[in-house]
Amino acid sequence: MSQPAFVLVRPQMGENIGGAARAMWNFGLDRMRLVAPRDGWPNQKAVAMASGAGRLLDEAGLYETTAAALEDCHFVFATTARNRDLTKPVVSPERAMEMAREKIAAGEKVAVLFGPERAGLENDDIARANAIISVPVNPEFASLNLAQCVLLTAYEWRRQTGEIAAERVEMAGSEWASQIEVEKLAEHYDERLDQAGFFFPEIKADSMKLNLRNLWSRMPLTRSDVQTLHGVLRQMVRWKERGD
Amino acid sequence: MSQPAFVLVRPQMGENIGGAARAMWNFGLDRMRLVAPRDGWPNQKAVAMASGAGRLLDEAGLYETTAAALEDCHFVFATTARNRDLTKPVVSPERAMEMAREKIAAGEKVAVLFGPERAGLENDDIARANAIISVPVNPEFASLNLAQCVLLTAYEWRRQTGEIAAERVEMAGSEWASQIEVEKLAEHYDERLDQAGFFFPEIKADSMKLNLRNLWSRMPLTRSDVQTLHGVLRQMVRWKERGD
Repeated sequence: MSQPAFVLVRPQMGENIGGAARAMWNFGLDRMRLVAPRDGWPNQKAVAMASGAGRLLDEAGLYETTAAALEDCHFVFATTARNRDLTKPVVSPERAMEMAREKIAAGEKVAVLFGPERAGLENDDIARANAIISVPVNPEFASLNLAQCVLLTAYEWRRQTGEIAAERVEMAGSEWASQIEVEKLAEHYDERLDQAGFFFPEIKADSMKLNLRNLWSRMPLTRSDVQTLHGVLRQMVRWKERGD
Repeated sequence: MSQPAFVLVRPQMGENIGGAARAMWNFGLDRMRLVAPRDGWPNQKAVAMASGAGRLLDEAGLYETTAAALEDCHFVFATTARNRDLTKPVVSPERAMEMAREKIAAGEKVAVLFGPERAGLENDDIARANAIISVPVNPEFASLNLAQCVLLTAYEWRRQTGEIAAERVEMAGSEWASQIEVEKLAEHYDERLDQAGFFFPEIKADSMKLNLRNLWSRMPLTRSDVQTLHGVLRQMVRWKERGD
């Protein structure tokens, strides 16, 4: 098991089981376990809702009790919105999935419990968990549903394991302009604008040229941008020469 | 404006506008803008779905075009699932909200664009954005809906701004045991288990005692745990003494 199992405890609506499957698979998780789903199993409403993630339902483990679903697990997280009358470590979703990654890498099996829609997990389920995951919701308004809670936890799992670039630049089939291309663009503008009388008054001309030069080098220009900017200038010159 | 505005561009279903409002308010965001909602505005289905977050809809700005909705903004993110034929920086949700926090702290106004349910943002909208937010979904299955995309972005905003403890321990009205309390517990077990003949054979007794001592100090024990463990031992002795 190279990923945590997500265990839905006594889920009520089939639609929510399907929605949880979609949420998991959006972030590459496919190990689902079900404890005593209210409306029996399999469930056609779950299948209809899961479209595209139906495999998770086909392969889901079905258990009568939370204890049975967790038998092979070494470390268990419980997701819960309310404070409970239990002494227990409480971790953020990010920290939880970081712990899960470390434990799984060390050969442990990890599970995450999600409670039924209305009431959430019972204390009896939570007492089986090693730690609680608490999503940092607005204390004035905490209304995450089952699939949303699954979604955020799965997202944090993917953040831990995916190689996610914080920043990159999408290129529209172009390449970055080289220094010499930007240099020639700058010269082209310098020359034409000088002819056009742009660098006026004389006393400010040097600082105006410096600022313009700086502007070009500050821009992340592609070769295609450079061509466009050359074209703009050429067309202005043509227009002037047409004299209309 | 101390938070980013979330701009829903040409949203189709009222339910999804309401769901987006709930997703935002779950993470403390309440600045919503709407560009040309398909079914007009106000929308009763949006109100019904938003229950508890209805204030966001009442206060939402309504605009005819994306350009109008962004007029006062200094930096705009666009959320999009597909690659576009545009050269543009692409950032993770986390990096995007980190940038948003920095820019807002520097007095800038920041907006995040979300496209219509089916087709997403048009290139014309995206060309107005300074950067693209890309959610790191499973490349085999990318099926986030509007409210889910809003939810993940809002969650990352809260992670940036909330003071979220990665780990803490919820205490059930108890306190941590002090060193002396744990020491006395260890002595109690040492003594009784010695009487009971637990440390056998003699040659292993010292290492067995050391392991037991280590076990007690390794446990995160509360005062109440310590009392429970004293009680367990006392009861075993009582049972023995009853001789039944």
